[in-house]
Amino acid sequence: MEKKRVYLFEEADGKNRNLFGGKGAGLADMTKAGLPVPPGFIITTEVCKEYQELGKNLPEGLMDEVLQAMKKVEEKVGKKFADPSNPLLVSVRSGAPISMPGMMDTILNLGLNDETVEGLAKASKNERFAYDSYRRFIQMFGNVVLGISHEKFEEILEHYKKEQGAKLDSELTAESLKKVVKDYKELVKKETGKDFPQDPYTQLELAIRAVFDSWNNERAIKYREIHNIPDTLGTAVNIVTMVFGNMGDDSGTGVAFTRNPSTGEKEFYGEYLTNAQGEDVVAGIRTPQPISKLAEEMPEVYKQLLEVRDLLEKYYRDMQDIEFTIERGKLYMLQTRNGKRTARAAVKIAVDMAKEGLITKEEAILRVSPEQINQLLHAQIDPDAPKKVIAKGLPASPGAACGRVVFSSREAEKRGKEGEKIILVRPETTPDDIGGLAAAQGVLTSRGGMTSHAAVVARGMGKPAVVGCEVIRIDLSKEEFKVGDIVVKKEDIITIDGSTGEVILGEVPMIPPTLSEELKELLSWADEVRKIGVRANADTPVDAQKAFEYGAEGIGLARTEHMFLGERLPLVQEMILAETEEERRKALDKLLPVQREDFVGLFKAMQGKPVTIRLIDPPLHEFLPPLIDLTVEVELMKAKGITGKELEEKERLLSVVKRLHEFNPMMGFRGCRLGVVYPEIFEMQTRAIMEAAVIVAKEGLPVKPEIMIPVVGLESEMEKLADLIHRIAKEVLEKNKINIEYKVGTMIEVPRAAIIADKLAKNAEFFSFGTNDLTQMTFAYSRDDAEGKFLGFYREKGYLEYDPFEHLDREGVGELMKMAVERGRKVRPDLKIGICGEHGGDPNSIEFCYLIGLDYVSCSPFRVPIARLAAAHATLKHQKQMAFVDRTV
Amino acid sequence: MEKKRVYLFEEADGKNRNLFGGKGAGLADMTKAGLPVPPGFIITTEVCKEYQELGKNLPEGLMDEVLQAMKKVEEKVGKKFADPSNPLLVSVRSGAPISMPGMMDTILNLGLNDETVEGLAKASKNERFAYDSYRRFIQMFGNVVLGISHEKFEEILEHYKKEQGAKLDSELTAESLKKVVKDYKELVKKETGKDFPQDPYTQLELAIRAVFDSWNNERAIKYREIHNIPDTLGTAVNIVTMVFGNMGDDSGTGVAFTRNPSTGEKEFYGEYLTNAQGEDVVAGIRTPQPISKLAEEMPEVYKQLLEVRDLLEKYYRDMQDIEFTIERGKLYMLQTRNGKRTARAAVKIAVDMAKEGLITKEEAILRVSPEQINQLLHAQIDPDAPKKVIAKGLPASPGAACGRVVFSSREAEKRGKEGEKIILVRPETTPDDIGGLAAAQGVLTSRGGMTSHAAVVARGMGKPAVVGCEVIRIDLSKEEFKVGDIVVKKEDIITIDGSTGEVILGEVPMIPPTLSEELKELLSWADEVRKIGVRANADTPVDAQKAFEYGAEGIGLARTEHMFLGERLPLVQEMILAETEEERRKALDKLLPVQREDFVGLFKAMQGKPVTIRLIDPPLHEFLPPLIDLTVEVELMKAKGITGKELEEKERLLSVVKRLHEFNPMMGFRGCRLGVVYPEIFEMQTRAIMEAAVIVAKEGLPVKPEIMIPVVGLESEMEKLADLIHRIAKEVLEKNKINIEYKVGTMIEVPRAAIIADKLAKNAEFFSFGTNDLTQMTFAYSRDDAEGKFLGFYREKGYLEYDPFEHLDREGVGELMKMAVERGRKVRPDLKIGICGEHGGDPNSIEFCYLIGLDYVSCSPFRVPIARLAAAHATLKHQKQMAFVDRTV
Repeated sequence: MEKKRVYLFEEADGKNRNLFGGKGAGLADMTKAGLPVPPGFIITTEVCKEYQELGKNLPEGLMDEVLQAMKKVEEKVGKKFADPSNPLLVSVRSGAPISMPGMMDTILNLGLNDETVEGLAKASKNERFAYDSYRRFIQMFGNVVLGISHEKFEEILEHYKKEQGAKLDSELTAESLKKVVKDYKELVKKETGKDFPQDPYTQLELAIRAVFDSWNNERAIKYREIHNIPDTLGTAVNIVTMVFGNMGDDSGTGVAFTRNPSTGEKEFYGEYLTNAQGEDVVAGIRTPQPISKLAEEMPEVYKQLLEVRDLLEKYYRDMQDIEFTIERGKLYMLQTRNGKRTARAAVKIAVDMAKEGLITKEEAILRVSPEQINQLLHAQIDPDAPKKVIAKGLPASPGAACGRVVFSSREAEKRGKEGEKIILVRPETTPDDIGGLAAAQGVLTSRGGMTSHAAVVARGMGKPAVVGCEVIRIDLSKEEFKVGDIVVKKEDIITIDGSTGEVILGEVPMIPPTLSEELKELLSWADEVRKIGVRANADTPVDAQKAFEYGAEGIGLARTEHMFLGERLPLVQEMILAETEEERRKALDKLLPVQREDFVGLFKAMQGKPVTIRLIDPPLHEFLPPLIDLTVEVELMKAKGITGKELEEKERLLSVVKRLHEFNPMMGFRGCRLGVVYPEIFEMQTRAIMEAAVIVAKEGLPVKPEIMIPVVGLESEMEKLADLIHRIAKEVLEKNKINIEYKVGTMIEVPRAAIIADKLAKNAEFFSFGTNDLTQMTFAYSRDDAEGKFLGFYREKGYLEYDPFEHLDREGVGELMKMAVERGRKVRPDLKIGICGEHGGDPNSIEFCYLIGLDYVSCSPFRVPIARLAAAHATLKHQKQMAFVDRTV
Repeated sequence: MEKKRVYLFEEADGKNRNLFGGKGAGLADMTKAGLPVPPGFIITTEVCKEYQELGKNLPEGLMDEVLQAMKKVEEKVGKKFADPSNPLLVSVRSGAPISMPGMMDTILNLGLNDETVEGLAKASKNERFAYDSYRRFIQMFGNVVLGISHEKFEEILEHYKKEQGAKLDSELTAESLKKVVKDYKELVKKETGKDFPQDPYTQLELAIRAVFDSWNNERAIKYREIHNIPDTLGTAVNIVTMVFGNMGDDSGTGVAFTRNPSTGEKEFYGEYLTNAQGEDVVAGIRTPQPISKLAEEMPEVYKQLLEVRDLLEKYYRDMQDIEFTIERGKLYMLQTRNGKRTARAAVKIAVDMAKEGLITKEEAILRVSPEQINQLLHAQIDPDAPKKVIAKGLPASPGAACGRVVFSSREAEKRGKEGEKIILVRPETTPDDIGGLAAAQGVLTSRGGMTSHAAVVARGMGKPAVVGCEVIRIDLSKEEFKVGDIVVKKEDIITIDGSTGEVILGEVPMIPPTLSEELKELLSWADEVRKIGVRANADTPVDAQKAFEYGAEGIGLARTEHMFLGERLPLVQEMILAETEEERRKALDKLLPVQREDFVGLFKAMQGKPVTIRLIDPPLHEFLPPLIDLTVEVELMKAKGITGKELEEKERLLSVVKRLHEFNPMMGFRGCRLGVVYPEIFEMQTRAIMEAAVIVAKEGLPVKPEIMIPVVGLESEMEKLADLIHRIAKEVLEKNKINIEYKVGTMIEVPRAAIIADKLAKNAEFFSFGTNDLTQMTFAYSRDDAEGKFLGFYREKGYLEYDPFEHLDREGVGELMKMAVERGRKVRPDLKIGICGEHGGDPNSIEFCYLIGLDYVSCSPFRVPIARLAAAHATLKHQKQMAFVDRTV
């Protein structure tokens, strides 16, 4: 026997969305559940594929099957398709396995022609209704199937509305509508050279073809591209008996959510229109009524709807988005699907449903996407407020911020600390800008990508950032930026939305972040499930405190160089400008107590959880003024005839900056390379860490320091620097007659480190993947440059499916990580392995980290809740026994 | 039974150098061959190890074994050790498995004391000789064993020379020498608090200990460190009957080479002194006579020596360096070893010996090291000429060059083209300096490593270069450089030696390069043996011609961007400054014919051998002025009040340079990334290549173009760009109605490319490893920065055993290469794989390339002969059946 191609609703299996599409599956489910669904049938997605394969030809015999199904529907309804006296009308609707709202075509009222319209008028005793339906049909069919522009039909309609003096379509009389129909048919003849097809069976076949064709219309292809939906899925076609919401005031049509999709409250939520067909609601010509009003207008129908709601939620175990029509007081269900919801609602619904026993805790966890949590943790722009968007950059750090535009970090820092709201605008930022970033409400840059300095630091601080906004042209000397003709000067107020990348002129109202009880509960469930630890990247006690509150199980990365900035910068510069080891040691002696103090704060904030401290990482020239600025300064001084001591000092500084200058600083004299050449720096830092640990331990508090060496690429580096650290640690502990457990480990961020991981593991007790740098080196992408230069282009044109700085590149970087894990654990089976690059807070990357067996991920404090949930998702997704995993929301 | 520790010369196996040391092995061989070797015995290197393990104690029973051996020697000589009437004297000599000349200790005349000296005087009837020997012994023993400084002995000697009015030591009378001996003994008593040991057996034991101790003296440890000799080898001790060259004018001592070590000519070559002991020759107090003189003075001895020479060469099958002593007309052989020789001699000796049937062709190949060939291909400083070395940098490109110092590339180019001899001195060089480099005799830079731009380009041009010479302080504005107090100004003449790194004041005489017939013959033998191809990196027809002459089997890398410089630069800049694709295409249209012309030249020069052309590689900003210079220029113009068009144009250029500026250009917008964003550039280049191929083919000449895409890291890049190339190629070929075979392939230089090699191989017909960049990315080393910053320090301190830009890092980069080869060939078994990084000319790296199965290496034309030999070495070294491979020269 041939494969069955056409299924009545009662024959189809609602679980098989791939075959029946989302809409068909819902209709099948509801039909079987005894809900009032108009009879109908589904042509499967397989037919769509066949149609495409046959070069846009319907497979042989299909229309016979369709007609057989139609016969059964006719029997049920008691009307006949194409019957001139009392015609059965149908809608022909698309329905893909994954919802693609509005992308494909639908035709209503099919089956009408010059004869059947009269039958309909008679049978319904409503001539106006019949002609209204007919003109709607011609218009929709003419547009969708025959390709005649909507506007041409609207012109005719407008003409008769004006002639009749009607404001609304629904005011048009039967007479007017008849004229409209006549003109519509003439339009069709003129445009297509043929009469409007009068044979309902021809109409039906053309409509089915049109729906299949619409699978490959431009916007559907684009939509699938964006949402990563395979082109091979195809759409089903649903043929549904027409029910009419436009038969008078006892009729209507509406949409509803079984719970509030905005707040998640368990309340019936929706709206409807009386005497209307579906498209009227969408068109927004008349304002729909809230669903609660239906309780007054049609109490019976409303009661029935509430029953449907309960039944559907029980069946689907999720909040449903439903469409219904009331025909002369009788309720018909036309669609049900899982409803879209805000992040806030998603959390509340999931937790509530788990508590109601509708779903399990594991299901509740999977119902909320980690990125939804992200939305909950930052201030948001009030979606209802008007706003003037002047530019769009990359949404680098979520949340919205508003303030006065300032172009200098120093000024931003000063005014920000005094309590002013500042938006820092820079071409890009450097570690020098940290103070300004910290004191500003948010940052806007014209260069750099999602992982540029500004982006990373802003996310780390939980501060909104829009970066790489290349359309703005910043003029630092004039202290202004331009977008087209708009000039934004210093002191002007702007708002930036780090969740969308929008730059908005003036102030826009905000809604505050909420960390609801439900979210806390959901996250505690996630903690029970997940198998991979979550730590935070935090450099200050304040950040550490925040991380702890958000549930971090330790610090995975404390960057010591961030402690070298601000008021301590002069000390660091003294160290760098030192010409002998002795001078350098003197400067380091001054830094020791301040570093120690930092570490005491970190240890205390983490209350005995492990704290991984990375020794100094960036090249030293980052702590000095940029070469180009200094060169210009010196040249200008010379040109102005300035001489003497002032010039000499500048020139001396310039010569140091020149000596330290590097063509490719990313691959330069940094990390452990500094520690090898200037061991006194690492010695000071180790001493500060261990002395801090001693102070905390002597107060009777638990403390777990982990000392991490960055930029390691050689076995000798790891060996000799671990020796150095152990030597200093032993010295400090012996002197203080105390024993404190500590660990020494390394970043894996240089490709070579991953390759020789077995050799490094001899001396490293833990690894932490620095995937920012590892990605840079593996791809040979400089993340500060690549985005604006070619990376954006690569993503846009499909060379790259995603930004490898956002999601771990499993194929390339991931191979190196797997290699490092395998080789490292071969030598040291209990090797602790984590990740502290930006990817540590990215759900997709967290899943990969779980799969290759990492012990923990570490991310910015604000992403800790996201990571906790994502880690739970990873565990659940890969427990094969869980059947509900392949649900498509 | 215990392991035997002491071997008479006739008992030892000369092949076991590890056990008997080099000297002992030679003595054993000669003894067995019946040559006149004074009787003696060897204490093995195993004893040295035991001695160290026992905390500097001789193993129990050793001295008994020594005395037994001594007894046998006594029997042979017919004298007794410590016999007061006619004492046997011995020398105690170190002898390590690998020669460490002058590093360890030796004691002569051992066995003398106040009694035996009298016996010696009587037996030799030569009181002066006896006391001369005694004072020599006390002095040597006092210095080596008792640690008394040489100068204190010399003071006493000088005193008596003055007293006696003697100029030379040998003029001292027996009476004077007796006084010297007395004072020497007093000195020993005063310095050590003990009498000089009179018991010959005590002397012997102490001397043996001293030799073992000298294995671990400071200079020996340092020497082993430098020459990578394992500390565990240990030294043997040779106890040899003394024979005396200082017994009168019928006695003497000398050294000789069996062939001329400088030219390789088959002639006996050496010198000798009459009435002297070995150390006199070394001390250089008297001028030795040429060995030919001996034929006159002692014809019998000379004849005997010639026989020894023939015998030794036959036995060792190599040129020998021998030491001999003549005692009262009788010849004794004291040492034989393989002689050190110049590169020129090495080649001639190897080829001659193969022709003489002494060795096989394969052995001849292995007798010459590839780096020796390097010395032969460049002008060299006359080793006999005096020279004033003022600084030493890295020997980046071999050969010597002399000329006037110039600090600007433009000036160097202009004057160099006019025929002046110029040495270009720069802090570092960029592609902008190519013209200057090409026109100069050589280049000296104060920054950059062995693979810096200057180094790479200079080697490519076969031009001497000294780079990273950090001690010179260049002042570009004053046009001078300083080293300490020495100021070298523009126009001063200097000489640089790219083989040693020396910078020499003034002009030094040179000797011209020689490519002898012997070398050509040797290389043709190498070609028969080797299994890996050798190509050249060449960008111009002139270079290609040179490569062809040197035996290159194709071009492995032609860098198209080098064709974008010089007079074509304005066209390239026009292309870069274009604001629309149309403008860009116009500029490219102008570049097309010049590129095409280049390719025609390359194809013709290579006469049908494959020519791999790499599409544009560097970031575009390399073709524009540096950001920093331009910024200073604009700021100064502003400061000087210059406005109007001049400023505007500069500012426009500056804005482009700013837009293209990158923080890490190495990882930036370059290579195929340019081809993706601006496909018109790759289209133009492909068209130029294929049109050139058509022109050549239409002339009836064979042509094999291979088009190579640089910086590939994604499957999509390879796929889409290969499509582009095939599309253009097809277009050109179809238009010209001709079929030409061509290949499309990729560089493997980004780590990710190696990891996804299987995916790239789908569309790549060949791979070429760009190991310069691959090394940079794998290590995260910027080669332009690393050397001066930390890499030199790393090598010095042993963090790195070698510069990974010089020798391939097998452990890290090599792993990626192996991965790429395996994965690539899995998908495409006939994938052609080569290497075109600098490592392609490095023998150590060539060996690795052979081992992992590459098809060819490609290097600069001047390294082609080296690579041919190195490739043969690699094959021979890994043919295990060849027994002679572990010879130690």
